[in-house]
Amino acid sequence: MGFKQKYGPWALIVGASEGLGAAFAENCAQRGLNVALVARRAAALEETAAKIESRFSVQTRNIVADAGKPEFHETLSQALSDLEIGMLIYNAAAEPGGRFLDIALADHLNNIQVNCIAPTILCHELGKKMVERGRGGIVLVSSLGALQGIKQWVSYGAAKAYELLLGEGLWDEMRDHGVDAFAYVVGSTFTPTFQRIQKKLGLPFADGVDPSKFPPGAPLPRPFEEVAATLFAHLEDGPRVYSHPDDEAKANADALLPRREVVEVMGRNSEIFFKGGLNSTRQ
Amino acid sequence: MGFKQKYGPWALIVGASEGLGAAFAENCAQRGLNVALVARRAAALEETAAKIESRFSVQTRNIVADAGKPEFHETLSQALSDLEIGMLIYNAAAEPGGRFLDIALADHLNNIQVNCIAPTILCHELGKKMVERGRGGIVLVSSLGALQGIKQWVSYGAAKAYELLLGEGLWDEMRDHGVDAFAYVVGSTFTPTFQRIQKKLGLPFADGVDPSKFPPGAPLPRPFEEVAATLFAHLEDGPRVYSHPDDEAKANADALLPRREVVEVMGRNSEIFFKGGLNSTRQ
Repeated sequence: MGFKQKYGPWALIVGASEGLGAAFAENCAQRGLNVALVARRAAALEETAAKIESRFSVQTRNIVADAGKPEFHETLSQALSDLEIGMLIYNAAAEPGGRFLDIALADHLNNIQVNCIAPTILCHELGKKMVERGRGGIVLVSSLGALQGIKQWVSYGAAKAYELLLGEGLWDEMRDHGVDAFAYVVGSTFTPTFQRIQKKLGLPFADGVDPSKFPPGAPLPRPFEEVAATLFAHLEDGPRVYSHPDDEAKANADALLPRREVVEVMGRNSEIFFKGGLNSTRQ
Repeated sequence: MGFKQKYGPWALIVGASEGLGAAFAENCAQRGLNVALVARRAAALEETAAKIESRFSVQTRNIVADAGKPEFHETLSQALSDLEIGMLIYNAAAEPGGRFLDIALADHLNNIQVNCIAPTILCHELGKKMVERGRGGIVLVSSLGALQGIKQWVSYGAAKAYELLLGEGLWDEMRDHGVDAFAYVVGSTFTPTFQRIQKKLGLPFADGVDPSKFPPGAPLPRPFEEVAATLFAHLEDGPRVYSHPDDEAKANADALLPRREVVEVMGRNSEIFFKGGLNSTRQ
């Protein structure tokens, strides 16, 4: 079965306005899928959709919706009612940053809404139809921050761990039904959001990462285009796919270390990009 | 600083009506803490509290509340407003069992409410006061099911992974503030719930586990009294404490295996205790 037959005719990409999400959508379109794009910012969505339509002979549909709102599910159900979704890429993320106790409770709950509740609902609704059809794909975008507790992003890491295990469990339940469900563990990535944080905090890599000037020990961010493309080479390689072999090697090495050391090192790395005053990296 | 000075004067145990939660409460009371007990069933709570008061010279307070309901937070805030909580043990759990797509969406969302939202709120509210006092303890009870995707309990495992990472992250943020926050990874445990499942499904271990008759390869359930006592020997051993060294050894060994194999084996083990028809193990 070819890509379009297996994962088409429509892909739904949640968190698709720019960066990694937009690149996922482009990869789908390049392989012949129509793409339904979901994000909060209408203008950014339109720009991404226009770019895709100009380059590929596919249809697009833009859905302005916030995965952090309770009405998200209803909005999507209505907007997608006439489409057959063969591929779900859940890339939306809330990333409340700062000390857990300093972050407003509402932001922690929004994090759960975006990273746990919304993907659970979509997997339940769209997964059912995929299993009935005997084909499809579900990608839950997780993070290296899901692999151990992470200072300054405690609830974010926890929610990404939820997505990671959701993807792994669905892989095991759906693999005999023709559906490739899995978690995509994304390492440090150079995205528009990354650039904005660099700029906002006066850090030196707003315009690109010079490896020779990068802090030793901190993971070198990889271009989002590369991270997006890697996913499409591994759609059948669940339950857990890493965005780079180096990240997988590091995770495997960490598993042999005392847990205390793993969490401490992650905490120190997370602070390299976090100098206070930043309450959310979700733009 | 002694146990009572560090973690007193009150411990709050959520999910305390029987089994592991009641045993956690007894361990606190034995060490001189007053115990606030939270569960849904008033009669079971009263029985546990009466038993504790008859054995130890401490106060108890019963709070009938459901961690799966939105009003949970408000109910607890009111009931605890006059108490100084130095120790939180979050042991409540929803465990929707069955194929992810067969479980009602409402049960998946209840799982998130009980295992993600409620502990996040309590850690935020009670953790703040502990850090201000410079002492305290937070125990988030997680599970071996949090370590890899788990067929038949997909969303349960995901939510337990949330709690695991929440505990690990809080450990790193609170350890310099005198607060021992961590995740307690509980292995297979012989509890009243375990007994009820055995009985309900006509399985042979309703009255106790005979190791010689136990399915080979399945983890042998340990008595809940032993699992509860182990926690109190490791309150300063975060970020992640296993309820038995064998479980930790197995987790470390699994980390070296291909991910696919780890998830498959866990899925097969989960099915040993799961023969369909059971939609929730939460009684």
